[in-house]
Amino acid sequence: MPPRLVEAIRYSLDAGGKRLRPALVLEAFDAVAASSADRSAAVAAAAAMELVHTFSLVHDDLPAMDDDDLRRGRPTNHKVFGEAFAILAGDAMMTLAFEVLASVKDAETSRRLTAELARAAGPAGMIGGQVLDMAAEGVDSTRDQLEQIHRMKTAALLSASLRMGAIAGGGSETIIGALGTFGRELGLAFQITDDLLDETATPEQLGKAVKKDAGRGKTTYPRLLGHDGSRAAAAAHTAAAIDALAPLGERADRLKALANFVLTRSS
Amino acid sequence: MPPRLVEAIRYSLDAGGKRLRPALVLEAFDAVAASSADRSAAVAAAAAMELVHTFSLVHDDLPAMDDDDLRRGRPTNHKVFGEAFAILAGDAMMTLAFEVLASVKDAETSRRLTAELARAAGPAGMIGGQVLDMAAEGVDSTRDQLEQIHRMKTAALLSASLRMGAIAGGGSETIIGALGTFGRELGLAFQITDDLLDETATPEQLGKAVKKDAGRGKTTYPRLLGHDGSRAAAAAHTAAAIDALAPLGERADRLKALANFVLTRSS
Repeated sequence: MPPRLVEAIRYSLDAGGKRLRPALVLEAFDAVAASSADRSAAVAAAAAMELVHTFSLVHDDLPAMDDDDLRRGRPTNHKVFGEAFAILAGDAMMTLAFEVLASVKDAETSRRLTAELARAAGPAGMIGGQVLDMAAEGVDSTRDQLEQIHRMKTAALLSASLRMGAIAGGGSETIIGALGTFGRELGLAFQITDDLLDETATPEQLGKAVKKDAGRGKTTYPRLLGHDGSRAAAAAHTAAAIDALAPLGERADRLKALANFVLTRSS
Repeated sequence: MPPRLVEAIRYSLDAGGKRLRPALVLEAFDAVAASSADRSAAVAAAAAMELVHTFSLVHDDLPAMDDDDLRRGRPTNHKVFGEAFAILAGDAMMTLAFEVLASVKDAETSRRLTAELARAAGPAGMIGGQVLDMAAEGVDSTRDQLEQIHRMKTAALLSASLRMGAIAGGGSETIIGALGTFGRELGLAFQITDDLLDETATPEQLGKAVKKDAGRGKTTYPRLLGHDGSRAAAAAHTAAAIDALAPLGERADRLKALANFVLTRSS
């Protein structure tokens, strides 16, 4: 691999961030699998998920897209390596994600994880959501339209993180579905708190520019529902997320704690 | 999927082109499998390969990369849909390629095809080759350096096309390896003829701008070896490609014909 390309990939992958998606994969696995189970498929899924999420940040930050200068507290990838490298580093991270999934030992698990990630990241999921998000600039969106953007742009990948952890752990369809619902509702809560933090947090807290949504004429939850209404909506999605965990009983305690972290986070 | 995104994807996929890579997948399959064999895995591999190749064209044509206005006889994707859509349409095609491979019925075949495509397209293959190619602008490259670029940027994906067809057809490791070698040598011949056509063909013949390599100060085979020397080098790679087919006997006749088409093509 060309060293400068590896450097550009590592620059964004090693920049930190919350690592929420890989944490969700591993927590879903732990909530489903026996404590003696082989974790390698879940670790591969967690790595693939972080690769795809980071790829999406690098591309979304490009001048032709959201044109952001700061991410995870550092200059964005294209600011350091130039646009061409940022495009190619993002492309490379996506191929690496699928290469990692292809290394999963059990072929049927590998195939299912690949299907989940491809669908959640693709034009009917995250990438489609980014298209809708850009199209919504300068437009008055309804709450339904806004939720649709959040479902695709954010919730699809979070839901897939949970489903992939459950698949790696050998969960039943019921359990995979329950964790997927948890992830989707958590994703909607996450995106509402993101909208709130965009208005109330500092760039230092978030590691990225703030008040950008309003500047672009995007409809946000705070604009539609106010701050209190948005907090109530986020809390309702978090409650729905936690409800979905019922079939898992106390094995889901750590996932519940993660859900409450998402609701109350300040960065 | 957002309709405008689907339109942007279809615009580039439906623009024609030689369909060389999917043809190679299917010909490799036919050279290996019984005539009664289920072709669905090979068809999926062929579709995935064309999706990844088209994604690479859309991204390579971007202003930040090769900045091309014409491709397959039409304005490039970003000229019609804008840069953001071209980036996202390319990203989407890549996810769709892996989604298609995840739909292959036999899980082990699906996993192997995914591994082949991810590796060939990734930072150690096509994407890495594009990085080296851009870095070579304005630089005097040696023949070894130039061949390394061609191996990664072009030959890796052609070799994978053949290997994937053979894998879908249930070929032995020996046969998969032989077809992979054929693909790599064919890819090197293909890229040398590409360099020659860039100097000698018209934009109408190629459906894209010509004489761009020289304009960018890139080393090319014609510049290093002259036209006759380049033709000889392409012929030598084609001969090596055809030699590699020996284990397949007359089942490889159509692949040999394809190799000769690549050597003598005028578009």
